[in-house]
Amino acid sequence: MKIALAQLNYHVGNFEANTQKIIDAIRQAEKLQADLVVFSELCVCGYPARDFLEFKDFINQCELAIQTIAAHTHRVAAIVGAPRKNPRPEGKDLFNAAFFLYEGKIQYITDKTLLPTYDVFDEYRYFEPNKNFTTHTFKGHTIAITICEDIWDVAPDTDDDTAHNPLYTVYPLDEVRHQQPQLIINLSASPFSYVQHRERMRVIRANVKRYRAPLIYVNQVGAQTELIFDGGSIAMSATGDVLAQLPFFEECIRLVELKPDAPVTPPLSPEPIPLIHDALILGIRDYFRKLGFQKAILGLSGGIDSAIVLYLATRALGHKNVLSLLMPSGFSSKHSVDDSIALCQNLQSPYHIIPIEDIYRQFLNTLSPYFKDLPFNTAEENIQARIRAVLLMAFSNKFGYILLNTTNKSEAAVGYGTLYGDLCGGLGVLGDVYKTQVYALANYINRKGEIIPHHILTKAPSAELRPNQKDTDTLPPYEILDKILFEYIEKRRSARELIAEGYEPNLVSRVFKMVNTNEWKRFQVPPILRVSPKAFGMGRRMNIEGKYY
Amino acid sequence: MKIALAQLNYHVGNFEANTQKIIDAIRQAEKLQADLVVFSELCVCGYPARDFLEFKDFINQCELAIQTIAAHTHRVAAIVGAPRKNPRPEGKDLFNAAFFLYEGKIQYITDKTLLPTYDVFDEYRYFEPNKNFTTHTFKGHTIAITICEDIWDVAPDTDDDTAHNPLYTVYPLDEVRHQQPQLIINLSASPFSYVQHRERMRVIRANVKRYRAPLIYVNQVGAQTELIFDGGSIAMSATGDVLAQLPFFEECIRLVELKPDAPVTPPLSPEPIPLIHDALILGIRDYFRKLGFQKAILGLSGGIDSAIVLYLATRALGHKNVLSLLMPSGFSSKHSVDDSIALCQNLQSPYHIIPIEDIYRQFLNTLSPYFKDLPFNTAEENIQARIRAVLLMAFSNKFGYILLNTTNKSEAAVGYGTLYGDLCGGLGVLGDVYKTQVYALANYINRKGEIIPHHILTKAPSAELRPNQKDTDTLPPYEILDKILFEYIEKRRSARELIAEGYEPNLVSRVFKMVNTNEWKRFQVPPILRVSPKAFGMGRRMNIEGKYY
Repeated sequence: MKIALAQLNYHVGNFEANTQKIIDAIRQAEKLQADLVVFSELCVCGYPARDFLEFKDFINQCELAIQTIAAHTHRVAAIVGAPRKNPRPEGKDLFNAAFFLYEGKIQYITDKTLLPTYDVFDEYRYFEPNKNFTTHTFKGHTIAITICEDIWDVAPDTDDDTAHNPLYTVYPLDEVRHQQPQLIINLSASPFSYVQHRERMRVIRANVKRYRAPLIYVNQVGAQTELIFDGGSIAMSATGDVLAQLPFFEECIRLVELKPDAPVTPPLSPEPIPLIHDALILGIRDYFRKLGFQKAILGLSGGIDSAIVLYLATRALGHKNVLSLLMPSGFSSKHSVDDSIALCQNLQSPYHIIPIEDIYRQFLNTLSPYFKDLPFNTAEENIQARIRAVLLMAFSNKFGYILLNTTNKSEAAVGYGTLYGDLCGGLGVLGDVYKTQVYALANYINRKGEIIPHHILTKAPSAELRPNQKDTDTLPPYEILDKILFEYIEKRRSARELIAEGYEPNLVSRVFKMVNTNEWKRFQVPPILRVSPKAFGMGRRMNIEGKYY
Repeated sequence: MKIALAQLNYHVGNFEANTQKIIDAIRQAEKLQADLVVFSELCVCGYPARDFLEFKDFINQCELAIQTIAAHTHRVAAIVGAPRKNPRPEGKDLFNAAFFLYEGKIQYITDKTLLPTYDVFDEYRYFEPNKNFTTHTFKGHTIAITICEDIWDVAPDTDDDTAHNPLYTVYPLDEVRHQQPQLIINLSASPFSYVQHRERMRVIRANVKRYRAPLIYVNQVGAQTELIFDGGSIAMSATGDVLAQLPFFEECIRLVELKPDAPVTPPLSPEPIPLIHDALILGIRDYFRKLGFQKAILGLSGGIDSAIVLYLATRALGHKNVLSLLMPSGFSSKHSVDDSIALCQNLQSPYHIIPIEDIYRQFLNTLSPYFKDLPFNTAEENIQARIRAVLLMAFSNKFGYILLNTTNKSEAAVGYGTLYGDLCGGLGVLGDVYKTQVYALANYINRKGEIIPHHILTKAPSAELRPNQKDTDTLPPYEILDKILFEYIEKRRSARELIAEGYEPNLVSRVFKMVNTNEWKRFQVPPILRVSPKAFGMGRRMNIEGKYY
C-alpha cells in the first residue's frame, strides 16, 4: 500500500483556507499514485480551536468542510481530523474524530479515546472519550486508526514499558489487538518542545514493538500563538525501522510504500538549541502571517535578549521588515548604542536612535510636586522602561508594526521587568528560554561567524535604569538562578526538597517567593512561544493571590 | 441532629491561616453544641488551587493540615474538603475529597464523582473521578456525602427534571439511593454569577425532592482573583423548606437542627444589580487583602466607569485608601474635571489634578522627525492614554498603590481601549459588567441620594482623546451593542443565526469581527472580577489568531 503523509500548516477557524489546502494535498497524493493520504488531528478547523468548539455554527462549518473534502476522494482515500457532534444525549457535546473518506463519502469514523487534559491541553473541556473500539479494512488491509494521545499509553508488559502512561486506564490499541491490525495510523497535533521529538520516536517504537505492525504518524506543523507544532511526521516499519521522517517546522507531503524491502532512513536527532532556534523563527513567522501583519518593531537595548529577538525576527520576516528603536537614557552606556548599531549593520536591518531624556525629565517635573525629595527607586526606573514602550507602541499604531517582546524565561519567572514597559509586546519570543539558553542560542547563531557582536555576549547583563546597575545587584547569577528555576518550574520540586538536597535555604526561598509573587505580572505578559515542556502561559495556571512558597 | 454550617473565606495555599480558621470554627461549633460541622470543598488549601495541586509538597501540606484538624474533633465531628493522593497506580494523581473527621482521626473519605471541566473549571486537569459509592453512618443517621457538582445532575424522572445535566452519565446520589440516606451533605465551591443563587436553589430542591432527605449545602465565600464565591449556604428540609440560608458575601457559622418542627425561612432572592454591587466590593477587598495591599489608585476620567470603580473601591477599602488622579489633556472637557471633583467630594476621597499636556507635547516633539505630517490618528490618541498609565503606575511604584482598571465588558469585548493605557491595572473591576449594566449599577448606588453626580450619568460617553469624540463615532449605541455581545458571548450564538433572526447583517459582522480581532488585547488585560455566567478570562479561552467570524 502507498500512503501519503500530509504534514500541513492550518489556520484555526479559517475553513476556506484549510479545506482548500486539504483538497490540494489530496490532488497531490493522487499524482503520487497514493492509495491513501493521511492528515493530522482536527486539521479541518486547526488545532487548538479552543472555545470556538463551543459554538454550534463552528461545528456545522466543520461538517460542511468534511462533506466538501469527501467529494474529492474518488481516486484516493483520505483520513481527515475534525470534531463531530456526540450523537448520544449524554456526555460532552463532541468527539475528536478521524473521518475515513473514500469514493466521495464518509466511510467510517474513529473517535479519540485518550483526551489529554494537563499542561497546555484542555481536551476533556470539549470532547467525550471514545469507548467503541474496532479496526477497519481498506484494500484488504486491516487498519487501526488512532488520534494523537491514543498511542501514548502502551501496556507495560512490552519489552519497552516506558511508553506506559499512568494517567490512563485504557490502552486503545490493546482493545483491537485481537483483530490483528496490519497497519496503525495516528493523526496528531503534538506541540513542540525541545525534548518532544525523542519522546515521540520512543512512543512510536514502543507501539510498533507491541503491536507488530507498521505505524504512520502524521503531525501538524506551524505555530498557533503559543504552541509551535514541529511536524517531523514518521512512517515506521513493523520491525521498528524508520521508512520516512518528514522535516521539522516545514510543510511536506511524502509518499511511503509499505513493503518488505522498503528503504530505511536513520532517525533525525537534532539538538535542543538548533531546534529552539528554528521553532522560534516559525513561531514569529506564523503569528504575523496568521494575523495578517508583515512588520515587527522592537526596542534594542544593547543586551543579548533584544539582539537575539532582532536576529530571529529578521530571519522570520525579512531584515527590512523589522525596525529597531535604540532609546538611550542618561543611564545608558555608550556601548549599548554602539553594539546595537553594529548588530543592525550586521543584519542590514533599519533602526532609529530616539533618546528618551527629554520625556523622562518632563515626567519627573510633572511628578515632582508629589514625589518631592523621596529617593530614586523603581518608580523612576520603570518610568524609563514605560516611556520606551509608549514610543514603540506609537510607531506600532502609526505604521502597523507588531511589537516583539524580548523578556527571557529567567526574567519572566522572577518578575525582573517592567509591566507596561519592557514586558509589552504582541508576542513573547524568548519567554520560554532561560537566560543561560539565550547565550547558547547566541553562540549557535554565531557558529559560522559574528552576527551578534561579541561585546553583547561578554558584557554583564544590565537593565541600565540607574547608574552602574547590574542584574546581579538584584538576582543571583543566572547559572544558579536558572538551575533553581528549572527545578521549580519544569520539575515541580518544592523549596523544601531543594533545601534538603543542599541548596542554600535563603536563596531558594528568595527565588521561590519571587516566582510566586510575580504571577500578577505574568498574567499580563504577551503570549510566549512555548519551546520547553513547561512554559509560562496556558500550560501553567497559577493562582495570583496564592500564598504557598 | 445539630449541624453547624461553616461558610468561610479561605486563602489559597495559606495552610497556616486556613487550618487555624477551620479549627476556630470547630471550637465555635462545639460551643453551639453541634454534633457535626460541615466545611466547604477543598477548604484546607482553598479553591481553586489550580496548578499548585501538581506540586507533591502542596499535597503533603494538605495531608498534614487534615491531621492537625482531625486532632480537634473529639467532641464534634467535622467534614472537611481537601485533595488526596489517588492510591491506585493509574488515573489522575488526586481525588477531590471530603474527610469525615471524628474522635481525633479520619473516619472515612468520600471522593468527588462529577468533575466540572468547562467555563472556569479545570477539575479533570487534576482529579480522578470517584467510582465507589456508599453512605456512612453517624450517630444513627445514614449520611450521603457529596461534593459540589455531584448534586448538579439529578435523574430526569423526577417531578422537576430541570436539574438533569446532559454532560454526565452518572447520578452520584442514585448510586446510594438503595441505602436510603437520611441526610445529604454537599461541600461546595460554587462561584458567583448573578443567576447562580437561583440555579443553586433549584438544584438543591430537585435533589431533596428525588431523594426525600434533607440537604445541607455549604459553599465557600470570598474572592480568589477572578472568581467571587458568594456563600449563601443552605439547609433544606426533606419537604423542600429552607431551614437556614446563610448570607451572601460574608463569613458565617450557623447551627441548624434537623427535626420535624424546625422553623423555616423564606428563601432569599436578591436581584442581579444589588448582587453584582456586593460581589464587586468583596472582589476588590479580597484581592487587596490576600495580596497584602491596602491602597488603590485609579484614573478618574469624568465618565461613568471610573466613577463607579471609585465608589466600589471606597466601599471595599475605605474612602481614604483610594487615590484618584484627574489627568486632563487638551481634549478634555471642563466638566470632566468638575464632575470628578464633585464625585471625590461626595465620597470624601482624595484626588490630584495632573495635566498631561506638557508630557504629551514632549512625546510629539520626540516623534515628529518620524511622524512628520502624517494625520492625527489612534497613535496620538493612545499616547495620551499611555501617559496616564505611566503616571498612575509611577504613583503605584512610589507609594504602594494597586491600580484599578475601569474598563467595562462592552469595551473589553470590542477592544475599545488602549493597551498599556486605560487597559492597565492589577484588577479589572467592571470587565464583566456591560455598559448598560454599569448605568443600572449607578442608579442603584444613587438609590438613596446622589453619590455619582447626575451629570456623569447623563452625558454622552467619550474617551476624549480627540476633539469632540464620542463613543458612538466608533461603536453602535450601547443598548444595541450590548444585546449583540450578550448573544455572542453569553449565549454563544453565531453571526449567521443573529442575521437570520433579523439583526442588521453589517452591524452583526462588524461587532463579531471586533470581538474576535481583539483577543490579543484581552490576552493582556488584568484579571476581571467574574459576575456573569460567561466572563472574559479563565472561563473563555479563545485563539488569538483564529480566523472564524
